[in-house]
Amino acid sequence: MSPKITTELLKQLRQVMKNPKYVQEPVQAYIVPSGDAHQSEYIAPCDCRRAFISGFDGSAGTAIVTEQHAAMWTDGRYFLQAAHQMDNNWTLMKMGLKDTPTQEDWLVSVLPEGSKVGVDPFIIPADQWKRMSKVLRSAGHDLVPVKENLIDTIWTDCPQRPCKPLIMLDLSYTGVSWRDKIVALRSKMAERKVMWFVVTALDEVAWLFNLRGSDVEYNPVFFAYAVIGMNTIRLFIDGDRMSDPAVREHLQLDSTLEPEFKIQVMPYGSILSELQAVGAGLSPKEKVWLSDKASYALTEAIPKAYRYLTPYTPICIAKAVKNASETEGMRRAHIKDAVALCELFNWLEKEVPKGTVTEIIAADKAEEFRSQQKDFVELSFATISSTGPNGAIIHYKPVPETNRTLSVNEIYLLDSGAQYKDGTTDVTRTMHFGTPSAYEKECFTYVLKGHIAVSAAIFPNGTKGHLLDSFARSALWDCGLDYLHGTGHGVGSFLNVHEGPCGISYKTFADEPLEAGMIVSDEPGYYEDGSFGIRIENVVLVIPAETKYNFKNRGSLTFEPLTLVPIQTKMIDVNLLTQKECNWVNDYHQKCREVVGAELERQGRHEALQWLIRETEPLVRVQ
Amino acid sequence: MSPKITTELLKQLRQVMKNPKYVQEPVQAYIVPSGDAHQSEYIAPCDCRRAFISGFDGSAGTAIVTEQHAAMWTDGRYFLQAAHQMDNNWTLMKMGLKDTPTQEDWLVSVLPEGSKVGVDPFIIPADQWKRMSKVLRSAGHDLVPVKENLIDTIWTDCPQRPCKPLIMLDLSYTGVSWRDKIVALRSKMAERKVMWFVVTALDEVAWLFNLRGSDVEYNPVFFAYAVIGMNTIRLFIDGDRMSDPAVREHLQLDSTLEPEFKIQVMPYGSILSELQAVGAGLSPKEKVWLSDKASYALTEAIPKAYRYLTPYTPICIAKAVKNASETEGMRRAHIKDAVALCELFNWLEKEVPKGTVTEIIAADKAEEFRSQQKDFVELSFATISSTGPNGAIIHYKPVPETNRTLSVNEIYLLDSGAQYKDGTTDVTRTMHFGTPSAYEKECFTYVLKGHIAVSAAIFPNGTKGHLLDSFARSALWDCGLDYLHGTGHGVGSFLNVHEGPCGISYKTFADEPLEAGMIVSDEPGYYEDGSFGIRIENVVLVIPAETKYNFKNRGSLTFEPLTLVPIQTKMIDVNLLTQKECNWVNDYHQKCREVVGAELERQGRHEALQWLIRETEPLVRVQ
Repeated sequence: MSPKITTELLKQLRQVMKNPKYVQEPVQAYIVPSGDAHQSEYIAPCDCRRAFISGFDGSAGTAIVTEQHAAMWTDGRYFLQAAHQMDNNWTLMKMGLKDTPTQEDWLVSVLPEGSKVGVDPFIIPADQWKRMSKVLRSAGHDLVPVKENLIDTIWTDCPQRPCKPLIMLDLSYTGVSWRDKIVALRSKMAERKVMWFVVTALDEVAWLFNLRGSDVEYNPVFFAYAVIGMNTIRLFIDGDRMSDPAVREHLQLDSTLEPEFKIQVMPYGSILSELQAVGAGLSPKEKVWLSDKASYALTEAIPKAYRYLTPYTPICIAKAVKNASETEGMRRAHIKDAVALCELFNWLEKEVPKGTVTEIIAADKAEEFRSQQKDFVELSFATISSTGPNGAIIHYKPVPETNRTLSVNEIYLLDSGAQYKDGTTDVTRTMHFGTPSAYEKECFTYVLKGHIAVSAAIFPNGTKGHLLDSFARSALWDCGLDYLHGTGHGVGSFLNVHEGPCGISYKTFADEPLEAGMIVSDEPGYYEDGSFGIRIENVVLVIPAETKYNFKNRGSLTFEPLTLVPIQTKMIDVNLLTQKECNWVNDYHQKCREVVGAELERQGRHEALQWLIRETEPLVRVQ
Repeated sequence: MSPKITTELLKQLRQVMKNPKYVQEPVQAYIVPSGDAHQSEYIAPCDCRRAFISGFDGSAGTAIVTEQHAAMWTDGRYFLQAAHQMDNNWTLMKMGLKDTPTQEDWLVSVLPEGSKVGVDPFIIPADQWKRMSKVLRSAGHDLVPVKENLIDTIWTDCPQRPCKPLIMLDLSYTGVSWRDKIVALRSKMAERKVMWFVVTALDEVAWLFNLRGSDVEYNPVFFAYAVIGMNTIRLFIDGDRMSDPAVREHLQLDSTLEPEFKIQVMPYGSILSELQAVGAGLSPKEKVWLSDKASYALTEAIPKAYRYLTPYTPICIAKAVKNASETEGMRRAHIKDAVALCELFNWLEKEVPKGTVTEIIAADKAEEFRSQQKDFVELSFATISSTGPNGAIIHYKPVPETNRTLSVNEIYLLDSGAQYKDGTTDVTRTMHFGTPSAYEKECFTYVLKGHIAVSAAIFPNGTKGHLLDSFARSALWDCGLDYLHGTGHGVGSFLNVHEGPCGISYKTFADEPLEAGMIVSDEPGYYEDGSFGIRIENVVLVIPAETKYNFKNRGSLTFEPLTLVPIQTKMIDVNLLTQKECNWVNDYHQKCREVVGAELERQGRHEALQWLIRETEPLVRVQ
């Protein structure tokens, strides 16, 4: 992977930063955030402005360009990748390390007095605007909105904004109709005494209307906003997607409906002016509910006194708690996904020793097996297929320049998943196709102990996920090891593979408490730079737990693994496991064998079934 | 314990809330916070305004009185106590429970439109003012400062503010002279480019000048403020304390000193006007550093643009990391404290079966044994001496009305500690003087497992204490049990028994990372309302840990128990312990026997030594 040469681009950007055609006054710094106008983590090619200007294309990062400097903030998952992808014009700011300045503090330290810092008001979340603008102002600088996106002005071959057909999900997938979701939302609005709710996140629009799209790779969403009033529904969406009769039927656009369920369809680009009109027409006490992560532009459309901002919207919270139809769909999706991976690992076991399988071939093969499964739509993220030292690049994606051949001498890490119409998967397995060293097994076993500690944890109702994060690290910490990422994220139901408001990470505190029906990943790891990476990831469902004493009737929770793919026993140093951990592995493998075995049988995949049976032989612990 | 009858007091308070003599405009609600003008947790009798108006005298709680309502917010430690101490005029607001409204939300829900909410600006911390005032304003109300404290106007027999003699600590106790502390503080100020630092917390003033006092029971502090400039030192303190020649000598008040170390002594009451003068005289870029918990009144004295507010002051952070002299002092204090407790428990073992020992007698006896030790000053908090159901009242203090006799049929919980000139102690032991039931032993053993999980935890440098909280709960959670308080708090060195900025609690997120030299408590518990309470508490020192692999040279930490008092083995169900836990107990008891045994021997306390030897017999685990 050679870095992108950005000298010329940065020169152009620095010119437009002073060009009165685009800026009222010159800006001495320009911020290029990661997201799009919906604060999406995964974005369409037309929104990949930070990657365009810097070369760094990981899923998280913020670039800031001043007259003299260009700096990139990203987190532990991407330290290596960013260092590889960016040229010497860029300084990497490693977030989470003690000595790394915040973006604001850095700006204050490098800017000349009385500077203007520009940013696209549609891209920057309101909460971030507020934080930055406060620090900058107190140091004598100004954060200013720059209407025209300055990257777009120099991005001559910027791709078009996608506008692909929609997928409708019926009740068998969603469990609840969009009408009932609107009713529930309005009741939450009434509780908080707000009159309007602005849906800005793409997955929230998709979830609310039981629609899916493919405007953004891996995330089955489409570009749209919605504004829900107590008696009106406005959907802001472009293209001829609303002329599809099936969509019209699904949204009952042509039916005689009670007026409060009549959807007004409006152009995507009219959201700001419509919202400004809403803002201008508010009577006292009429509040408008927005996510505090909605863009600064949309937030400003509502006068401050009328805003009701929360970190998590009622849709975000409702969406996180899966109903019975969604949970059943997720179970089905994970069984199909396991079938594909059994096929893949069986195939790899035969092919790797021949020395012909590269990371890209393996990733493609995984996609091929997945695509054979019913209701497969697409992958849920770019497959991380990494062998040997590439495994230590936490969010690695193989490209021809880095593509390494799998061998019997290196650890192979595969983190992959798919979108099926009934659910979203995300699974990581770490395998050795030869004989792992004692040290590799030792590290793998610590990671496994951490995985089990979370998966088998029992905790009271109301516990926040971040309180479980240390369980995943304890075995590693005991030996002085650790990993620089969180332990788990929320997973959507045929939606984004990363979703809020729950998760398992030392980095968050404002996560919502875990409750039965939420789905998160459990994925501790260990990474040795230049050598190997280990990660063991299951998607797990929060379920009620029976306990011996039910403290003050509070109720307890635990996790049920939805992912049912064997964990390679060859990598386990059984003597480092407790009997309880050993039983957990054996019970888990027994379930894989029964549930996935039956499906392999049904699909007539006999060789993969044999592989599954071999890989799920019980561990025996020598006392 | 019968509740305080507050009907008449509340009537009087509601009258002064409308009395133009005290308020410019009537206030519809009046807030009575817990603290004093220094935001102390433990306060002098003249500052116990919340206890005066409500009857509830726990260490944490906020009262709000409106024309119709009187409500009290407190946390899990005090739910039972508050319910017992308050009459029917009061509504208890249980903080930490899901359905309990915040003070602001509750005010919004009960106040008539356009209300004024009054509070003493010297008592309310600036950060809390800001938060409350924002919410109230957005709901159309106003938070207003009421200069005269309204409780004081109806508190006819309010005691005088204490003004007791000072204690000087020499270098053998403090390790660092006050001059060197000022130098270090000024270098922190220079780093942040601030010109002034305002010391508002009593323990910070005491620590900075290596002085102690006894103005507040249990906390060896004295009423004072300090304002440190780059070239000036102002100490605001009352009484003739500064005429004591020893104090003058200690502070070098009469020496020829470099001007930047010359201390100007000013009256305690002049802080506001002096600070206002400082605020008025600032040139641009001259910042003033204050804790964001400093009072609203003092914070307002500095114009907003000149304020530099942080949650933890540089003194708070420096004070938390004990130097070698302080650590050695703490070790000595804990050995002496253990001697006293061995004497006490030996005495209890003989006396309890006679049926003559009450909770108060036991507490007094504990104090008597402690007072026999060298450099004993006073207790470090009100002894929690509780038997049977009283043990479930987490911060119980025995009074004649609740005083229960210890017996061989009930669990006895003793949480106590002392101030010695060389250190502060805080230890909880839970004992049974007869035969504990299997259930009591089971619960005790889960608490012990949690205690060990924290005490033996190994974690990377830079880990925040709140990430260890779940380790203490895991064994309880597995059986559906829990406790409603944090696991640990910072402990001062001959200073406050509760101090920031570190701790071990699920409730905080903004705690500073643990580092070697910090001292915290490790005190999980389990409480069965109406039956018993269990808590096992040691004070532990953060020390570097050796690990097998030293992940990226980050270094690891663990804890060393400073408390060396046997944990009653009779209460342990050995079969619920792992071998590792069993070894921990045996190693700990071995150390108690060696270290405390030698001191008992030296002090000629032979009977207590025999008790110690009996109580530290190794546990044997049946495999």
